[in-house]
Amino acid sequence: MITRSVARALDRRDPFRKTRACFVLPKNTIYLDGNSLGALPRAVETRLRRLTKREWAKDLISSWNTHQWIDLPATVGDKIATLIGARAGEVVAADSTSVCLHKALHAAVSLNPKRRVVVTEDKNFPSDLYVLDALARDRHLKIVRVKADQVERAIDTKVAVLALTHANYRTSEVFDMKRLNHAARKAGVLTVWDLSHSAGAMPIDLNGTKTDFAVGCGYKYLNGGPGAPGYLFIAKRHQRKIAPALPGWMGHAHPFAFAKRFVPAPGMQRHLTGTPYVYGLTTLSAALDVYRGVSLKALYAKAGLQGDLFLFFALSEGASLGLRPACPINRASRGSQVTLRHPHAYAVMQALIAAGVVGDFRPPDILRFGFSPLYTSYQDVVRAAQLLVKILKNKTYRQHRYTKPKRVT
Amino acid sequence: MITRSVARALDRRDPFRKTRACFVLPKNTIYLDGNSLGALPRAVETRLRRLTKREWAKDLISSWNTHQWIDLPATVGDKIATLIGARAGEVVAADSTSVCLHKALHAAVSLNPKRRVVVTEDKNFPSDLYVLDALARDRHLKIVRVKADQVERAIDTKVAVLALTHANYRTSEVFDMKRLNHAARKAGVLTVWDLSHSAGAMPIDLNGTKTDFAVGCGYKYLNGGPGAPGYLFIAKRHQRKIAPALPGWMGHAHPFAFAKRFVPAPGMQRHLTGTPYVYGLTTLSAALDVYRGVSLKALYAKAGLQGDLFLFFALSEGASLGLRPACPINRASRGSQVTLRHPHAYAVMQALIAAGVVGDFRPPDILRFGFSPLYTSYQDVVRAAQLLVKILKNKTYRQHRYTKPKRVT
Repeated sequence: MITRSVARALDRRDPFRKTRACFVLPKNTIYLDGNSLGALPRAVETRLRRLTKREWAKDLISSWNTHQWIDLPATVGDKIATLIGARAGEVVAADSTSVCLHKALHAAVSLNPKRRVVVTEDKNFPSDLYVLDALARDRHLKIVRVKADQVERAIDTKVAVLALTHANYRTSEVFDMKRLNHAARKAGVLTVWDLSHSAGAMPIDLNGTKTDFAVGCGYKYLNGGPGAPGYLFIAKRHQRKIAPALPGWMGHAHPFAFAKRFVPAPGMQRHLTGTPYVYGLTTLSAALDVYRGVSLKALYAKAGLQGDLFLFFALSEGASLGLRPACPINRASRGSQVTLRHPHAYAVMQALIAAGVVGDFRPPDILRFGFSPLYTSYQDVVRAAQLLVKILKNKTYRQHRYTKPKRVT
Repeated sequence: MITRSVARALDRRDPFRKTRACFVLPKNTIYLDGNSLGALPRAVETRLRRLTKREWAKDLISSWNTHQWIDLPATVGDKIATLIGARAGEVVAADSTSVCLHKALHAAVSLNPKRRVVVTEDKNFPSDLYVLDALARDRHLKIVRVKADQVERAIDTKVAVLALTHANYRTSEVFDMKRLNHAARKAGVLTVWDLSHSAGAMPIDLNGTKTDFAVGCGYKYLNGGPGAPGYLFIAKRHQRKIAPALPGWMGHAHPFAFAKRFVPAPGMQRHLTGTPYVYGLTTLSAALDVYRGVSLKALYAKAGLQGDLFLFFALSEGASLGLRPACPINRASRGSQVTLRHPHAYAVMQALIAAGVVGDFRPPDILRFGFSPLYTSYQDVVRAAQLLVKILKNKTYRQHRYTKPKRVT
């Protein structure tokens, strides 16, 4: 009870009460899966109605100009740029994250053509590993997968590219971007960062850390809606040197001249391929406006405190019930999620979901809890930890059998 | 006046009056640009409200399963399959058309590895030409661009792949798919068809004509909304032989096992890359339902008659005013649009748009008029031809100066 009153007090003085009000949150549910699919920002509903009823239905084809549909990859990219320490004109929002990663990796290796090795983490997000293996196949390169703590040591002058995910999707462990970029630069290695599990949840300074390439996801912390486009960052200094991996008319210098030969647009636009996904870009654009005036440092500080509180309450009583931390205890090494291990993790998560706490399970034994401090309250966090402990104590998870998970997360 | 009463009579007995009622059409406008951006099907509005308010806002992450988001590329693909003579499991809807074309071409050349030539039409859609040039760069192939009437002659045993757009985006000329596929097959050449300007507007029989690969666009005749996903068809007989060009987690046999090595899914799913674009797939899915019970043969017959009427009225009075046909006069060689040439085409189209007739201009001198017989009426067609002639007669187009077009069409 003391716990809850502390949580209430923290919520009362939480500067993010205002942004919480910008979201439609499900009733009777504590949603701790915004690291997988962000909640619906209220502004999206209004924006979608306008897109459908006015722009598509009435203005039809002319909307490409009059409502600037054609500029959406750049305008949404510029909004994302402000969250990741990039400049206007360094980010475009388009395609899926994995397609963006294909583009970024091909671009990066093309700038370092004499080197044959790409280094990554062996526990990188699986889709990233598949994209890397395809790169190796297509460009006759060798992918070296190393443990997280061996990454820095693996950087040498034989390496063309270092490709990492900033915050690990399972353990929430965050790489030191500045330090690794510095080591890479000294060895003439180009860097490609996947920001899917960190952008929008913590401060990122791509230019300050001299990052070369980055990609990320629009539907996690950025709340762009299911299947919202990913994004691609290329540092200004590299942009003009690169022939796009997947050229298409949207990357042409004059797409509506319908020229028979590809002439790349000057900046990031050359990396666009097909027609912009207007719906996904519109939901993402409206969602990004919630970030106006938000301090990412303050947001990350809130996530850190929420993570500490959750770990403290869950582990102080849950450790004796089989719960183990799977994320760093030190919040400085952690993203905006916490993860725990339990031998019956799948069943425990099902029991939690049945009790109204939505997190997710990652095989074989991981419980993930994502804090989206734009809308996650301290009471949510503390209540979730208490329910987790209660389920473990009462063993109510035993009634939840394992069925193969199918969903995208 | 006789003309209009004929048009009215045709509209009265038009079996597609019912499907016209399924669309929200702009007032005081004759919209002849559905070949570029299809009009809004009424059902989309309801479906979008449900997607936002119920599926995203309330059910959140669980919607990947409970609302089958995860299956959308396949379920929407199956709906498209019924329009193009493909079987269930042969089409997936994902990415943009150009990204789908990258995938299809890489797949096709991988099945014919000893041949180094790809044949296409020199007036193919520019984005397709850029994708082909990138293929040549990446796979060390030679792209041979020939005139439309030289395509059949260019097919020989040195050719790996024949890549064509079924209906030309400017001239509306339609290739004889059956004949060219037959010639290709005899020479051991694989075929890749872009159906963007024909699917949904005319009967297509991919399996009946033994097509190997095809791609197409979701936002033109299919009315899927701005930037709706494209689609990829691979004939069943080839599916298991191909390693996907752009692998990603959605193409994995067990995406949610988060395995460290890519194991391709058995069928078309292996060609998926990133997370499904739920908004675009949902609008497209709702739009495709308008086709239930529609005979594509009847639809194409209507387009043919509409084209004939338009050409007759426009050319009988407009020929002496500088108008020339740019599409086949014989409707059997034409898609669902008609195109005309005029020395002041840009200004003429601007004057038409100002008068409420929306078609489009293609450089240097092309006027395009797309008939979407699901919703285009005979009165629309006749009235548009009359207004065109009036503008030419009065020379009202002279007040419209040329400004560089920017929009996607």
